[in-house]
Amino acid sequence: MKFNNRNVFVSKKAHVGNNVKIGDNTVIYDNVIIEDNSIISNDCIIGEPLNDYYFKVDYQNPETRIGKNSLIRSHTIIYSDSAFGDNFSTGHRVTIREKSKFGDNCRLGTVTDIQGYVEFGNYCWLHSNVHIGQQSKIGDFVFIYPYVVFTNDPTPPSDVCIGVTIGDFSQIAVGTVLLPKTKIGKHSLVGAQSLVGGSYEDYSLIAGNPGKFIKDIRELKSKETGESHYPWPSKFNRGMPWENEGFESWKRKNGYEDV
Amino acid sequence: MKFNNRNVFVSKKAHVGNNVKIGDNTVIYDNVIIEDNSIISNDCIIGEPLNDYYFKVDYQNPETRIGKNSLIRSHTIIYSDSAFGDNFSTGHRVTIREKSKFGDNCRLGTVTDIQGYVEFGNYCWLHSNVHIGQQSKIGDFVFIYPYVVFTNDPTPPSDVCIGVTIGDFSQIAVGTVLLPKTKIGKHSLVGAQSLVGGSYEDYSLIAGNPGKFIKDIRELKSKETGESHYPWPSKFNRGMPWENEGFESWKRKNGYEDV
Amino acid sequence: MKFNNRNVFVSKKAHVGNNVKIGDNTVIYDNVIIEDNSIISNDCIIGEPLNDYYFKVDYQNPETRIGKNSLIRSHTIIYSDSAFGDNFSTGHRVTIREKSKFGDNCRLGTVTDIQGYVEFGNYCWLHSNVHIGQQSKIGDFVFIYPYVVFTNDPTPPSDVCIGVTIGDFSQIAVGTVLLPKTKIGKHSLVGAQSLVGGSYEDYSLIAGNPGKFIKDIRELKSKETGESHYPWPSKFNRGMPWENEGFESWKRKNGYEDV
Repeated sequence: MKFNNRNVFVSKKAHVGNNVKIGDNTVIYDNVIIEDNSIISNDCIIGEPLNDYYFKVDYQNPETRIGKNSLIRSHTIIYSDSAFGDNFSTGHRVTIREKSKFGDNCRLGTVTDIQGYVEFGNYCWLHSNVHIGQQSKIGDFVFIYPYVVFTNDPTPPSDVCIGVTIGDFSQIAVGTVLLPKTKIGKHSLVGAQSLVGGSYEDYSLIAGNPGKFIKDIRELKSKETGESHYPWPSKFNRGMPWENEGFESWKRKNGYEDV
Repeated sequence: MKFNNRNVFVSKKAHVGNNVKIGDNTVIYDNVIIEDNSIISNDCIIGEPLNDYYFKVDYQNPETRIGKNSLIRSHTIIYSDSAFGDNFSTGHRVTIREKSKFGDNCRLGTVTDIQGYVEFGNYCWLHSNVHIGQQSKIGDFVFIYPYVVFTNDPTPPSDVCIGVTIGDFSQIAVGTVLLPKTKIGKHSLVGAQSLVGGSYEDYSLIAGNPGKFIKDIRELKSKETGESHYPWPSKFNRGMPWENEGFESWKRKNGYEDV
Repeated sequence: MKFNNRNVFVSKKAHVGNNVKIGDNTVIYDNVIIEDNSIISNDCIIGEPLNDYYFKVDYQNPETRIGKNSLIRSHTIIYSDSAFGDNFSTGHRVTIREKSKFGDNCRLGTVTDIQGYVEFGNYCWLHSNVHIGQQSKIGDFVFIYPYVVFTNDPTPPSDVCIGVTIGDFSQIAVGTVLLPKTKIGKHSLVGAQSLVGGSYEDYSLIAGNPGKFIKDIRELKSKETGESHYPWPSKFNRGMPWENEGFESWKRKNGYEDV
């Protein structure tokens, strides 16, 4: 239904791999590389030119690379000068600006807005309507829930831009604002609707407005089971690379032993 | 201006009623039923195929039904396997996933994101940028204001999904997050920018971060008039079915007597 | 890449100035005026007809005016009966409803949603995903950060609509909700994730949930420099009209002396 080659425009300067599907009304601009077996659904714009395009006659579009087996859902806009690993996926109407780097197996939800100049590791899952400010640096297996905002200007307006840093396996719950320069360690959990600044150790539960350290997440007992769901990787494995062998075994083989 | 039959594609397997208008660049996929006198404006996608479509050769698109006299504004995406009653309307860029059921006379504002597997009664009005998580169950005459988020996973990430339940005539004010499993009774009001979990009786005013029961809404006196605006149905009737006869008379005839 | 005249439709009743570029798939409806040297990028809708269009046979589209040297990014929807000064710019997927008036040099970020019946002065910068309710009145040099919501109904639902008023040079930080009827003076700063109602003098720092006056912004000392960044115009001038001569000199010449 979506792949009828209606109004599809692919630049001659783009490189489209084998077995790639491109949906109706999608535009692929200059110097985009789409690797094998990826699907770019309908009404997408891949390789959106940078601001200079509008004003400089000799503008050259920088390279944009989308890894293999990716699935970009409709109406997504990806600026040029970005790179995405394999198995990348987006919901609808995602906007990603230039100089965004994502590792493998990342997912971005509907209407999510990546402001560019950011780095994500592998297996980062962002849900709907997440806003990531420039200069954010996010580790591996970080999940960010709807309406979370990462900021970067401590005294707006200014020319200072200091992004947020998040360690591996941390979770940022719905509706939370992370203030500029916030550093969250590994295996931490930031509660819903919090306003958080400052630096936090690994395994922190942080919550509230203003947000503060509440307890070690390993002490957060479930009413039903009496034990902590956190650190979560031993409790959740859908889509995770440890799905078959379990987290303990996997982490030793894959360099995550320190946590 | 919008109905020039430019780039309109309607599947031969769709059923379009009498006097239906379809805007330019709109696509109606397989097994969509649009009932009489409805308007689907420009750049919409109705019957968006489910995820399986991308991966299964024998994919069949489930049925999608849009009731009569509906008005779907531009750039709205409605997944297949959903059903909407009569007089349904959306703002622009609404996204509605599969297994969403809406009664009659519902309205969804611009950029609202319905995650699917939800049930709404009649006369639910959602404003701009509302996010409804899966497994939410909403009664009749429920109004939800901008940037409200309904969640469903108590210990993210997990495979548990327990949605929010809202009783008839309740109002959820702007910027509020409802935690998984929250139950709000009938005729309640949740204040702006609250973070709410737990269960609440009918006629509750709930507010704050963390949110708590403040008082019976009937005791919430207006500074101007000295009397409570709540329960609101006797004070507000624009677009309501009791517009002519008044709420008291209407509710007795329509089975809402218990409240 | 964007200006190939593919699927561009410009009404014969529109007026397009000299050296205007119109992107692919863009539609310009009746009675739109686009002044010289502006760029309307791809997939935009300018002069979106009002609600009556769907129901009245003799509907006439009111005038929409976009000032010179403007840059409207892709997928923006601008309703008719609005007016924008020179050097106006938008991000992607902005929605602006009717009876919106903006002065010169205003910028709106991606997914921002202007509900119409609002007035903005000059040099207002709204970031991504800002929501401005009807009857808001905003001065000059007001910056509004992501996920801020301006409301207008004190007892929802009702037919009362009393918007928010913001004085010149004020800043509204990320994730904040301004309650109906809120009045913020000049040179004020509302902190992140606040819930604010009431009226505040010039030079106020307001923050918290519930929000309150914290201190005079001139007493807000930076840890690094020991002095206040506020009032900000003497510290920040990128893109500001005082970029060359400095704020003190500029404000005397331009009628902002009272602050």
